[in-house]
Amino acid sequence: MRNQQVLIDSLPQGKLSASNYRLAESEIAPPAAGQVLVKTTAFAITAGTRAGLQGSASYAGAPTTGVVMNSTGVGEVVESTVAEYAVGDAVVAPTGWQTLSLHEARALTKIDPSHDPVHYLGPLGVNGLTAYFGLLHVGQPKTGETVMVSAAAGSVGHLVGQMARLNGCRVVGVMGSDAKAQVLVDQLGFDVAVNYKDANYRQTLKEATANGVDVYFDNTGGMILGSALFRMNVGGRIACCGVVSQYDTDSPEPGPRGIPGLLVNNRITMRGFLVFDFAQHYAEARQQIHTWLQAGELISLTDEVSGLEAAPEGFVDLLAGGNVGTRIVRI
Amino acid sequence: MRNQQVLIDSLPQGKLSASNYRLAESEIAPPAAGQVLVKTTAFAITAGTRAGLQGSASYAGAPTTGVVMNSTGVGEVVESTVAEYAVGDAVVAPTGWQTLSLHEARALTKIDPSHDPVHYLGPLGVNGLTAYFGLLHVGQPKTGETVMVSAAAGSVGHLVGQMARLNGCRVVGVMGSDAKAQVLVDQLGFDVAVNYKDANYRQTLKEATANGVDVYFDNTGGMILGSALFRMNVGGRIACCGVVSQYDTDSPEPGPRGIPGLLVNNRITMRGFLVFDFAQHYAEARQQIHTWLQAGELISLTDEVSGLEAAPEGFVDLLAGGNVGTRIVRI
Repeated sequence: MRNQQVLIDSLPQGKLSASNYRLAESEIAPPAAGQVLVKTTAFAITAGTRAGLQGSASYAGAPTTGVVMNSTGVGEVVESTVAEYAVGDAVVAPTGWQTLSLHEARALTKIDPSHDPVHYLGPLGVNGLTAYFGLLHVGQPKTGETVMVSAAAGSVGHLVGQMARLNGCRVVGVMGSDAKAQVLVDQLGFDVAVNYKDANYRQTLKEATANGVDVYFDNTGGMILGSALFRMNVGGRIACCGVVSQYDTDSPEPGPRGIPGLLVNNRITMRGFLVFDFAQHYAEARQQIHTWLQAGELISLTDEVSGLEAAPEGFVDLLAGGNVGTRIVRI
Repeated sequence: MRNQQVLIDSLPQGKLSASNYRLAESEIAPPAAGQVLVKTTAFAITAGTRAGLQGSASYAGAPTTGVVMNSTGVGEVVESTVAEYAVGDAVVAPTGWQTLSLHEARALTKIDPSHDPVHYLGPLGVNGLTAYFGLLHVGQPKTGETVMVSAAAGSVGHLVGQMARLNGCRVVGVMGSDAKAQVLVDQLGFDVAVNYKDANYRQTLKEATANGVDVYFDNTGGMILGSALFRMNVGGRIACCGVVSQYDTDSPEPGPRGIPGLLVNNRITMRGFLVFDFAQHYAEARQQIHTWLQAGELISLTDEVSGLEAAPEGFVDLLAGGNVGTRIVRI
């Protein structure tokens, strides 16, 4: 069968551009013993994959060219050599940006037919699990505390804020447009949303966090992390999830001022985490998240683009902050 | 009675100098009801008090002039209005840099007559307790792990390294002179000591921490924190205790590069702490430390200067790294 792919053609110098990718077409082999052939129906574009294109060390490993761009996708089994998967089964898979992909059975997750498959790219997938474990296990918010989250309209951030609200916290979102701010407050129940691009950002944040910040969920690093540090209460916790402010550049900023001085004075804990470390608790988290979704208490925002060839521009736009919710490419 | 004092005469612009202090003499009132008059026999000079002379926010509060320089001291009761303290009792007190001082009884700690009073300025005092709780409660080292400590020949650092050794860890000290390095390895049982002033510092540190660092006890911040971050193992802990690299300046450096990116990739926890938060556990810690001292397993290094008037130069020299162990001024 013919497989359409988007390959990494060159590594970005400075900012990523769509020309760092190229479309390719090739013949895909039938599945070998133990393998399953999956036809992609949709995949997610997430900021964290930009780190994998940097020369610097990253959990994503060293960058290479000539390979298909990586991503998590959902799809349908079109050919199977194993008993557990039948043709037509809906699965989650590390599809990458391509229409067909071959997987060992153990790399797949079967999708419960009562669930919307696309939720596995959002609240029931890596984004939702990252929000859940980062907020609840790393941040450990208590009822009545203030939770601040950056990239608050992003795929992880919009879920973090809602989960904080569901845990009885006051929620302050930081994002880069007033339109996003309105979505967070009006549709998702954030208490307040602050635009970091405003000239008065620091003053506005101060007013929005009059009682300080107890938990800061950091998706950005950089200037927003710097501003959060000065708002942290004694004993505050910073869950370090991502560094989107530093991905799309050759010259990352130095760390924020006040590290480690403010950490000492205010006994702040900063803890970096990767969702994979919580794998043994995924099932219970997915159950809780599914319950919230069913009850309408947690809203999953998706921001869809259509067609494989739209993925590169969709990624560039995401890194510039163009998305609201999880960016998904439908094939 | 006449009281000799060292007052803060002016706040330092840039680096601290002895001329920021002046000697003064005044009459001290007899103790009012509930008070105790203490004659200082010795006091400690610690780098952390430099933070109290900075305009920036610090746990030490806003800086002022015309007041006696603060410090913890040991002394003898010379006049008492309370039953718990008799003339001649040895006590720990917030004496400051002066020969006599008045205290409410609750501000004093009685010294066990079987203990060396000067140990209350070192291993049984704030320095020792800071080392103990920062290493064991914040850093949580496990047997066989590697512990790195900066300002390793300082009042806190030289105790941290020994306590890490006593907990079965490999100990790597970082300090600014080869003479100090020799003391740490030859007298205190550090496994290796690395001079951060060497041109090859980063490479030497890499070789000294071939299996990475599991716990970094940070007394300095700045460049040494930056170098430690790149040596941390997955799941490593950084106990943020002090920022001596940033105290004696008007223009602190930005935070180290790699924050928060490295924290995420390697799931590192950085936690700031103040020893006062562990006050309810002081007694048990002192007992353990006393046991180590008695057994000769923990060595307390002191670096003494003589006479109140020597204190300002002693502080300037300490900030330049001139001390080995706890700097104590004997009256």
